[in-house]
Amino acid sequence: MRMVDIIAKKRDGHDLTTEEIQFLVTGYTDGSIPDYQMSAWAMAVLLRGMTPRETGDLTLAMAASGEQLDLSSLPGIKVDKHSTGGVGDKTTLVVAPLVAAAGIPVAKMSGRGLGYSGGTIDKLESFSGFQVERSREQFLRQVQEIGVSVIGQSGNLTPADKKLYALRDVTATVEAVPLIASSIMSKKIAAGADAILLDVKVGSGAFMKTLEQAETLATAMVQIGKQVGRKTVAVISDMDQPLGYAVGNALEVQEAIETLAGRGPRDLTELALSIGAHMLVLGELVTDVEEGRARLEEIIRTGQAVEKLAQMVEAQGGSREDVYDPSRLPSASLSLEIKAAQDGYIAAIDAETVGHASVLLGAGRLTKEMPIDLAVGIVLAKKRGEKVRAGEVLATIYANDDHLLQQAARELAGAYTYSAEAAMDQPLIYKTIVE
Amino acid sequence: MRMVDIIAKKRDGHDLTTEEIQFLVTGYTDGSIPDYQMSAWAMAVLLRGMTPRETGDLTLAMAASGEQLDLSSLPGIKVDKHSTGGVGDKTTLVVAPLVAAAGIPVAKMSGRGLGYSGGTIDKLESFSGFQVERSREQFLRQVQEIGVSVIGQSGNLTPADKKLYALRDVTATVEAVPLIASSIMSKKIAAGADAILLDVKVGSGAFMKTLEQAETLATAMVQIGKQVGRKTVAVISDMDQPLGYAVGNALEVQEAIETLAGRGPRDLTELALSIGAHMLVLGELVTDVEEGRARLEEIIRTGQAVEKLAQMVEAQGGSREDVYDPSRLPSASLSLEIKAAQDGYIAAIDAETVGHASVLLGAGRLTKEMPIDLAVGIVLAKKRGEKVRAGEVLATIYANDDHLLQQAARELAGAYTYSAEAAMDQPLIYKTIVE
Repeated sequence: MRMVDIIAKKRDGHDLTTEEIQFLVTGYTDGSIPDYQMSAWAMAVLLRGMTPRETGDLTLAMAASGEQLDLSSLPGIKVDKHSTGGVGDKTTLVVAPLVAAAGIPVAKMSGRGLGYSGGTIDKLESFSGFQVERSREQFLRQVQEIGVSVIGQSGNLTPADKKLYALRDVTATVEAVPLIASSIMSKKIAAGADAILLDVKVGSGAFMKTLEQAETLATAMVQIGKQVGRKTVAVISDMDQPLGYAVGNALEVQEAIETLAGRGPRDLTELALSIGAHMLVLGELVTDVEEGRARLEEIIRTGQAVEKLAQMVEAQGGSREDVYDPSRLPSASLSLEIKAAQDGYIAAIDAETVGHASVLLGAGRLTKEMPIDLAVGIVLAKKRGEKVRAGEVLATIYANDDHLLQQAARELAGAYTYSAEAAMDQPLIYKTIVE
Repeated sequence: MRMVDIIAKKRDGHDLTTEEIQFLVTGYTDGSIPDYQMSAWAMAVLLRGMTPRETGDLTLAMAASGEQLDLSSLPGIKVDKHSTGGVGDKTTLVVAPLVAAAGIPVAKMSGRGLGYSGGTIDKLESFSGFQVERSREQFLRQVQEIGVSVIGQSGNLTPADKKLYALRDVTATVEAVPLIASSIMSKKIAAGADAILLDVKVGSGAFMKTLEQAETLATAMVQIGKQVGRKTVAVISDMDQPLGYAVGNALEVQEAIETLAGRGPRDLTELALSIGAHMLVLGELVTDVEEGRARLEEIIRTGQAVEKLAQMVEAQGGSREDVYDPSRLPSASLSLEIKAAQDGYIAAIDAETVGHASVLLGAGRLTKEMPIDLAVGIVLAKKRGEKVRAGEVLATIYANDDHLLQQAARELAGAYTYSAEAAMDQPLIYKTIVE
């Protein structure tokens, strides 16, 4: 088998066999297939596409390219959750303890943030002493004991995907849907998922800017799930404006705690309940999402949700008091209120602009090596569709540097669009795709 | 300017600017743009295409990527000739002295053979003592003195093309028409051509298998010529069967001499006169091809053509006697006649198969490093369309190794297809494309 023939086959629009896909993933992982062949193949895939069968084969081959986590010692169906990333997306901080409290074992590996998409692992480090690096044994023992652990990605998981992702980034082949879909799904499978809930974000603050793109990606991933025998549900949710009010690590943790305690923003609460309910169905704890939702609402109301987070924080080296008294979380030294420039309805709060402003403050990183400031960020006072008068507070910026604060304020002001009349409400969840 | 953005632009089907094309050729030549970006770009070009303006820009940028030959010290319009390669294609051996005798200065760099396409430089080395490596000064002086010199490619001409060609070979991007066209044209321009005659071969023994493919390539090259201000004419000629009767280096030289002396095969004579006549028009020595053809027929009849070859051989270190007595050329120790298996008309002599058989004998090389045997080869006795009886001689194989001789004989027998009735004659020249 020769890679040049495999490239030619895809270039000419033909389907690759399972063996050909295994050959190229194995060869790329061990270095016998060079970058220049892989990038030509990736461009051919981008322009010619892949069938669901091919994409499934690619996913399994990449999952098998390195270590695979064995979660079989944990009871029940392991349901993993993945978000394609957005501004103010603290959903995992809410959903993980929530579904764990309901009985879904959550052994989750999560990533750090890059660009304006925050990372769950960074956010969790807002809890003083919280350990994100754990041994396999510690990780599994904690899930056995309290039902939930969220740690950083460790070990040599999906090396083929890591290598291919870095290559795609510099060869204009990031956008290939079968490659995006198999990249995400291969990581979930290598991390031991039996079933997968995908939160596919769409809008200004998301990688997918249009509903059509988001649907294409979501469908591709659900099809992979079907191909590889992992029940998969994709929820397509709005990322035109930030999710919730808080953007920034400790600020988002605080909002997540509020949400677990039943006092969270309407959109975040709604999304967490929807996603959580689907996960309960995937985990076969309930038979439909209505039942799942009722179960989760009960868990929030009775305080079990916030208590599960407190248990997790404690088990991973933090203090449970931080959960019950969020004023103990890191806080910024400076703050500034941003006020409405005019009377009217808020027609849009551009999520990408809010994200940029928060990165400016130091809440996010542009390269993997950049340090971040856990305390800084933005807390919106109003969301899309609300009526405001000129001079009314739109948001508060929290910073540790006055120069950056002023820069962020200018940037943030540009995020708002006003309208004279109240616009139609945009849905939070556009669509749910089930196999 | 970033290469990743240039790749993305081409991936999305947009036209690249002149500056973007110069950036990528310069960057690839100096190593600042890596192979893996260039191969992704090449695949995008293959699947998305390039406009004539883009292809012209690419051609000029590649021509400017290394040394460029300055032929301005030679009088008149320098008309170069290029063949896309075929089996038994000794046209340059005929055309170069022929048009030089008519007054076109021929300062030609030519290549060695690879695969079953022979190389003019290899063939010329059949003349004992013939020097294919000459200094710039020697080369130009010889053209000034006798009007013709054919040497091997020397110096650092079109390094961008060399590098890109090697990359395309292993990334399934050889077939991109704008890349093939600009590769050929950039070399001609770097070699100092004012005008260019292209012999685009089509058929079993050619890179282009269909007339449509050949026309696409020929048109692309003629369009480049127009873009870059070099008058260009493309002749599309048949390569379903070998050109002439002889395949193999010294055997082809002998046939070329016969043709220069007016005793050559009908097809080779016809092609050489057509190509030569176009070159005389391009060189503005005559106003139309009919006049050019008459001039060349006169040159052959009066012995000036063969004498010009003798002058060239002598000037480059060989013996003019070899030209007037070709029995002095290298000859093989063994020979075998291949006979017709049945009565009938020869419907086809598959050029690719004849080419393979000659490579088997050692007349061609499969890798750049392989030595070749100048003496061996095949001489056909019959061509397509001729009537034969079972047992009649079809061809003679010349070899220096009996084992290879037997192998080649088996291979060659498979080249023939017979028909009960005489088929329609296939044209030698399908089309001539003038800007």
